This record gives sequence, structure tokens and C-alpha cells, in this order.
Amino acid sequence: MIKIGVDANGGDLGVLATVGGAMRAVSMYKDIEIVLYGDENKIKPLLTNDERISIVHTDVTMDMGEHDPVRAVRTMRNSSLDMVMYAAKNKEVDAVVTSGPTQCVIMAAHLIIRRLPCMERVALCPIIPNMDGNPRLLLDVGANVELRPEHIGQFAVFASVAAKEVLGIKDPTVGLLNIGSEPGKGREQEKITYDYLNTVKSINFKGNVEPDQLINCPTNIVVTDGFTGNIAIKTLEGTAKGMGQMLKQDIKSSIGGKIGYLFMRKNLKRFSKRMNSKEVGGAMIFGVGAPVVKAHGNSDAYAFSSAIKQVYNMVKSDLINKVIAALPKEEVNTNE
Amino acid sequence: MIKIGVDANGGDLGVLATVGGAMRAVSMYKDIEIVLYGDENKIKPLLTNDERISIVHTDVTMDMGEHDPVRAVRTMRNSSLDMVMYAAKNKEVDAVVTSGPTQCVIMAAHLIIRRLPCMERVALCPIIPNMDGNPRLLLDVGANVELRPEHIGQFAVFASVAAKEVLGIKDPTVGLLNIGSEPGKGREQEKITYDYLNTVKSINFKGNVEPDQLINCPTNIVVTDGFTGNIAIKTLEGTAKGMGQMLKQDIKSSIGGKIGYLFMRKNLKRFSKRMNSKEVGGAMIFGVGAPVVKAHGNSDAYAFSSAIKQVYNMVKSDLINKVIAALPKEEVNTNE
Repeated sequence: MIKIGVDANGGDLGVLATVGGAMRAVSMYKDIEIVLYGDENKIKPLLTNDERISIVHTDVTMDMGEHDPVRAVRTMRNSSLDMVMYAAKNKEVDAVVTSGPTQCVIMAAHLIIRRLPCMERVALCPIIPNMDGNPRLLLDVGANVELRPEHIGQFAVFASVAAKEVLGIKDPTVGLLNIGSEPGKGREQEKITYDYLNTVKSINFKGNVEPDQLINCPTNIVVTDGFTGNIAIKTLEGTAKGMGQMLKQDIKSSIGGKIGYLFMRKNLKRFSKRMNSKEVGGAMIFGVGAPVVKAHGNSDAYAFSSAIKQVYNMVKSDLINKVIAALPKEEVNTNE
Repeated sequence: MIKIGVDANGGDLGVLATVGGAMRAVSMYKDIEIVLYGDENKIKPLLTNDERISIVHTDVTMDMGEHDPVRAVRTMRNSSLDMVMYAAKNKEVDAVVTSGPTQCVIMAAHLIIRRLPCMERVALCPIIPNMDGNPRLLLDVGANVELRPEHIGQFAVFASVAAKEVLGIKDPTVGLLNIGSEPGKGREQEKITYDYLNTVKSINFKGNVEPDQLINCPTNIVVTDGFTGNIAIKTLEGTAKGMGQMLKQDIKSSIGGKIGYLFMRKNLKRFSKRMNSKEVGGAMIFGVGAPVVKAHGNSDAYAFSSAIKQVYNMVKSDLINKVIAALPKEEVNTNE
């Protein structure tokens, strides 16, 4: 039985998304068991089927607008986020899913579950929908604003194992996000990282990937520092969302558009589904001692169930132990 | 009379775009005169109306795949790009339009026309189409991978004058591209730059702008270093282009989609026009002694004429002298 801890109070919709998502996940997998950390009074009326679902009560929630994540994680021990992280630390659950505030989730995973000895940094790794229908991994997108080449190398190893074990990609390829495709492009940082990644034997490094290729990406994995990755992922999400809105506005603005929509409805839905992160799950947190998935803050029950499915696959494939095996101690410098 | 120098050989389409663009521009503005630097044998058959258009012959073209821009600019003195830049330096033309290779254009402007004494760095500043139909300025997007706060401050002043004089925005606002909206977000670099921009009196600084706001932007101008700006602009362009392609594929894949398209044709065209850089001109080069516009490499005649129109407005508004007046010497540290 795989036991998943769910931060039931987290996210914009709170229990409305997490309880429905949990019931959906349990009905999909017979070997899943879910513990909901959250407000019992709000959960119970929604929990129409509690087979393999239990509740640990707390009505304290980490605020989505939290400005001091470290302080919040350290002081709000009875919040649903802290509680589910402690459950993972104490092996009461195998993994965690939350749609709480991103920086709090990263800090809670870091401070409570703790880093793996073989990883010097923790990374946030979303799944990027791509034009060919196959998802890509991009990391780091915001856990660390600055990183050394060795840290990016460890992320590349971790993501390669995850791409193989969780996404089922045979020999995952790795690219370095950069402003040009040739070697020698970018800042000093990219030049050194490029050379370093070429020396990491356990990854299949293919060189630089330009940002305009992110949704039509030549590699399965793209690595970068957390500042650059955050700029890229937010630009991508903002552009995709904005274009969708503009298209909708424009269609509604004329009779021709409205009639056309009736015929094209299925196409437009399929289009928006292809670019929709709800299908692919959430962002994975790499580097701590248990699988953690951060679902989008605005996840509905369907999106939340995708995130549970994702973390289920991370546990099922024994991801963490395979990463430990893939990161030999000699590759790692334990000084911080 | 405003005299514009055109690198007629540059760009993916070469004379096919530049000659048509020049004829179009001359027919729009009666006070424009154009000098085409390019291959006379190829230009003449296309030049069906040479009123106020002259040719300076050269059949040497800077290669779009040029890997060593500094060497290319220094050695290819008889290339159309170098020649038009020398013409601007020697005041034979008032401004330059080219769709040549970006880094070569920046280097040629820098090495041949030369930096303004009041500007310590040269910036590449594209116009970003926005959802509200009003363009925004983003800089730097690739002239400098690393910048000090004072350099970004000078860019903010330059762009503010350009937004006012060229785009007709009354009191242009400035934002700093960053991974969070609150002060104190980002790398050390963003924190220092944020504080510095608050001290620059001649700009209207509004704080941080997140990348997901770029196409729905709260400020008229967004400043950042050239690496981050290049990551953002390329992610935006790649996502917009990729989404457009996916939508097209999807529509063509079913009968419903094809019928819907007949009704929705106008909407989809308007939609793609709104996000199309062909309408808004090219990227401006800020910081050298003459207005230079770098049109998209894949510009057609229409897009190229928009770029000529843009540089025409830069000359007409006396942009360079207004920037010199707006950048008092005490704000500038001339040590490099």
C-alpha cells in the first residue's frame, strides 16, 4: 500500500479541490491510501467515499500571500502544510502533495523532511506541456536564485532518473537553458556549467537549449538556475494564458466568431487541454528525503488528482533510492 | 528631409523584403529619403519606383549564422551592414534600419557609430505586443549579459524618453523584471537595482514586474539585464509562435475545425495580428549616436516598412538629443 499525505487546506480552493482529488485518486489506484491533513469540519461533508482515506484534523492554513516562508514554516507547526511534512519525515506517509504557497512548500520540505545527503540543493521542477504531447522537465524554477555548476549537475542526474522512472523515457536527454545554441554562449555561469555538464557521465547532455524551444523542446530535461528558470516558466505561462484569453475575447466579439466556435469547440478545447498543466500534474520538489509534489495553487479536483497520480508514480518507482544510487559520493562535494 | 540608411542585403529575405519595404515607406512619408546599401543587380529589377530612393552598391552580406560578430564587423568593411553604419557615423544618413544578424548589428552600431558619452552601455530594446493593444518596451534583451544598476538606470531614462517621444506615452512608467512583485525579491542584483531605480528622479519607477505579466503589463517599460531579457523575450516569442502553430494544426485536423475556421477566419487573423511583431516594427538599439532599428530576421516588405516608420519617428522626434538632455552628466559614471 502506498500512503500519500495530502495538505487538504492548501491552495486557492482548499478542501473543494483536495478532497475531490483524493477520492478520484483512490478510485484510480487500488494500492493507494490517503491521509488528509486539514479541517475535519470542512472535509467530512465533502468526503462521500472514505475508503482508504483518513483525516488528521487541523484548521490552520498557510496563507497564500505569506511573505516570510522560513518564519511561517518554523512557527506554524500545526498548519496542514507543516503537519503533512512532519508525517513524511516520520515515515507516517510515503510522499506529500500540496497546493500551498510555493516558497513555503519548498522551505517546509527543506527544513522538515530535510535534504538528501547526496544533494546540495533542493530544486523545484515543473512539467512543461509540449507541442508533441510529451512533457518536458525544467529545473530549477525558483528554489535557488543562484547555483553552482555542481548543483545544476546534481539536478540533471536527479531529473534524468525521474524522467526515466516516472515519465518512462528510456535515455532522457539534458539541455542547458541558454541565450544561444552554440557552446560559449551566455554568462560566465553558463559557460562553466556547460563544460561541467559535459563531464557528468550519468547524464546524456546535449548542449544548450534556447528559450524559444521550451514548448517544442529538443531535450527531455532543461536545467538552469532558479532565477532564470522562474523567469522562463512564468513568461511561458503568462503568454499561454494571455493568448488564450485574447482568443476567447476575440471570438466572442463577433457573430462569425460565435458561429465558428460552435463548429470548432472540440478543437479549441483540445488545444487548451494540450497546453494545460492540469493534465500533467504539479511541480516536483527534488532533493529532499521523500517525494513531494506542489500542485498549482488554482488546482481543481481533477488537477489535484493528477498531482497525486504523479507522486504515486514517484513512490512506486522507488525514485529517491534510485537517485541515491545514481549520485555516487565522489561526485558530491558536501560543503555548502 | 529625413534620410534613412537601409542595409538592403540583410535578413532572411534580403532585397525581396528591404526594397519593397523602402518603396512602401517612401510612399507613406513625403519627407523621407532612403539610401539602399546593397546589391544593385538584385535591387534594380525590384525597384519599380525610385523616387527619393538611391542605391550604394555592395554585394557583400553579413552571414545570418555569423559566430564571431566582433571579427565580422571589423573585417567586413564592404558589407552592407558596415557600410550603412559608416554612413550614419559620417552623417550621410540620419538613421539605420537592418534585419541583419542581431549580435553583428549591435556590435556594428557600437564599434562604428559609437556610444553616446552619456550612455555606458548599449541596449537592444524590442517592442512587446500587449493584450490591450498598446506596445511595451523591454530592455536589455541581449546586448549585455551582465549590467550594473547604473546601466539599467540609464536604459530606463533612455526608454522613458523613447516611450514619450516615439510611442506618444505621456508619463511612461518603468518596472524591473523580477521573480516576485514585492521589494526584496530576486538575486542580489535585482535588490540593488530596485533601490537604485528608486533614486533616479527622471523616471516613473513602479517596482517589480513579474514575467507572466509581460503581455499584459502594468508598466510601459520593463528593464532587466540582457541575459534575463533575452530569456524572457525568446520564451514569449517561442510560446506565442508554438501556440499559433498548434491551434492551426488542430483546426485543420477535423471537418468541424475547418468549417468553424470559415466563420472565425477574421477573428483568428485579428488575433494573430495583435500578437504579431510585424505591426510594431523592430528592436531599437539605444545608446549609440544615431537611431538604429533592427528588424526581425524574417521580416517581409510590410514588416520592414514598419521598422523604417519606427526609425523615422525616432529621427523626427529628435530622440537622441532629448536623451542627452535627459541624462545629466552627474548621473553618469564614465568609468567602464
